[in-house]
Amino acid sequence: MIGIDWGTTHLRAYRIAEDRVIERRESESGIMHVPAGGFPDVLRRAVADWIEAGDQQVLLAGMVGSRQGWVEARYVPCPAGPEEIGAAVIPMPFEGADVLLIPGLSAEDNAGVPEVMRGEETEIAGVMDAIGESGLTCMPGTHTKWVRIAQGRIAGFETYLSGEVFAALRDHTILGRMMTPGPVVESAFDRGLARARGGGHLLHHLFGVRTLGLMDRLAEAESASYLSGLLIGHEVSAALPVQVRVVLIGAPSLCALYARAIEACGGEAATALPEAAARGLARIGKAAPWS
Amino acid sequence: MIGIDWGTTHLRAYRIAEDRVIERRESESGIMHVPAGGFPDVLRRAVADWIEAGDQQVLLAGMVGSRQGWVEARYVPCPAGPEEIGAAVIPMPFEGADVLLIPGLSAEDNAGVPEVMRGEETEIAGVMDAIGESGLTCMPGTHTKWVRIAQGRIAGFETYLSGEVFAALRDHTILGRMMTPGPVVESAFDRGLARARGGGHLLHHLFGVRTLGLMDRLAEAESASYLSGLLIGHEVSAALPVQVRVVLIGAPSLCALYARAIEACGGEAATALPEAAARGLARIGKAAPWS
Repeated sequence: MIGIDWGTTHLRAYRIAEDRVIERRESESGIMHVPAGGFPDVLRRAVADWIEAGDQQVLLAGMVGSRQGWVEARYVPCPAGPEEIGAAVIPMPFEGADVLLIPGLSAEDNAGVPEVMRGEETEIAGVMDAIGESGLTCMPGTHTKWVRIAQGRIAGFETYLSGEVFAALRDHTILGRMMTPGPVVESAFDRGLARARGGGHLLHHLFGVRTLGLMDRLAEAESASYLSGLLIGHEVSAALPVQVRVVLIGAPSLCALYARAIEACGGEAATALPEAAARGLARIGKAAPWS
Repeated sequence: MIGIDWGTTHLRAYRIAEDRVIERRESESGIMHVPAGGFPDVLRRAVADWIEAGDQQVLLAGMVGSRQGWVEARYVPCPAGPEEIGAAVIPMPFEGADVLLIPGLSAEDNAGVPEVMRGEETEIAGVMDAIGESGLTCMPGTHTKWVRIAQGRIAGFETYLSGEVFAALRDHTILGRMMTPGPVVESAFDRGLARARGGGHLLHHLFGVRTLGLMDRLAEAESASYLSGLLIGHEVSAALPVQVRVVLIGAPSLCALYARAIEACGGEAATALPEAAARGLARIGKAAPWS
């Protein structure tokens, strides 16, 4: 089969045989770069040779199922595992192959406020074995998700806007004026982390990024790392139950910062296997009702 | 005497006689619009006729004393009241009048992180009578300050970045895509306030602004008000001691939102007299060592 992880900025295609990726390719044909009505053509361009070679099953995951994508797929309510997700795929109009689209998942937090994911459910399906029958996974990114697994299914999840808040604060507030770009300074990250864990509100802690700089107690090369430590420290302190193991899924550099924060908070961080999306496409593909 | 509230964007000049403002004018000659070395000329243009008419004492307050201003004035450490601030004014080089500059104030929070203000100390001096010998004042704005008064002096303060965070989130994150500009919708502000007070972390609550919109449970015309309620609700919940009276100093529309949040949190909100800066300039001017 062919698995497509079709996100906002990129399209990643995997040719899968017997649960293994035998070929992969990536392009910048993310949904924001696809013209209206252009999805079948872009898909054909991406994998026409694989289809012609005999792979007639194509499974799509990610933002391609959003309002800005090919079609808007509904959300499957939690709890849901690979079987429920596979049973809920949506057949797509396409000539020459059997194309199915994976829906997103929805949940509600304790206060009844909705939660949604689209694409992450597939990555989680791919690392379910690493998590085990029950556990917790964290998917750091622009909108970081903390996902609870129970009985082999996604039981519920919460999203934190930390990544996008970091970028907005760095690029569009006074805090960014005393920041120089550069690699993460771990000691500064740890100071931000300690500040977050020591009590007090984030909205107050943010002003300290400026005053520590004004008073020459935080260098411009350290300031972004300190801010990152503050935000990730606040998030992990709020999201992490006591002393739990967390499987991290995401970009290695960002996962390393989250692992640092999780361990500082008394948790245990593990990194998931790579290519979670490809594994998840293979797993859900097995449960899907191919015609 | 002449009092000048010289901020980043505006210059407000007051002619004061016997503690009363007898004439006022305002221009857009804030420090960001003053060329290097241009401060004496801009001051002269603003109040030359008052000086010629006999007012030889000119007192400056605000960002004019910052690194980007006329000279960088040091910070006076808290606790400090009008007497200490008046005693610490800095004589400025100027021909034809006696010009003094009011310094800012510094403090540290419980964790030893520095706090600074510049200009607010003058406004507080102006409303000290309304606050009483001891009390709490809140100065809503881009960087909202919560200031503790004890024994008629500023004992300490904490700054929250809520105002600037609101603007950065609205203008530079995905949350702004589902917001239409318009007047504050009080019911939506109250929903954000209730969400903030109901527990959970701000970084998670922010994602709810998007999901409530996606699920048609928050209209685009309500979304900015909901976000404002979230941020102000988080700030007030963290900053407000139990059931205390808070004197608000600032723009009336923003003070009204803070009053709403303070009352929802069990506090009592009072609004300060207008022209706090002019009153404070008069008060500190009395304590200043004019030549």
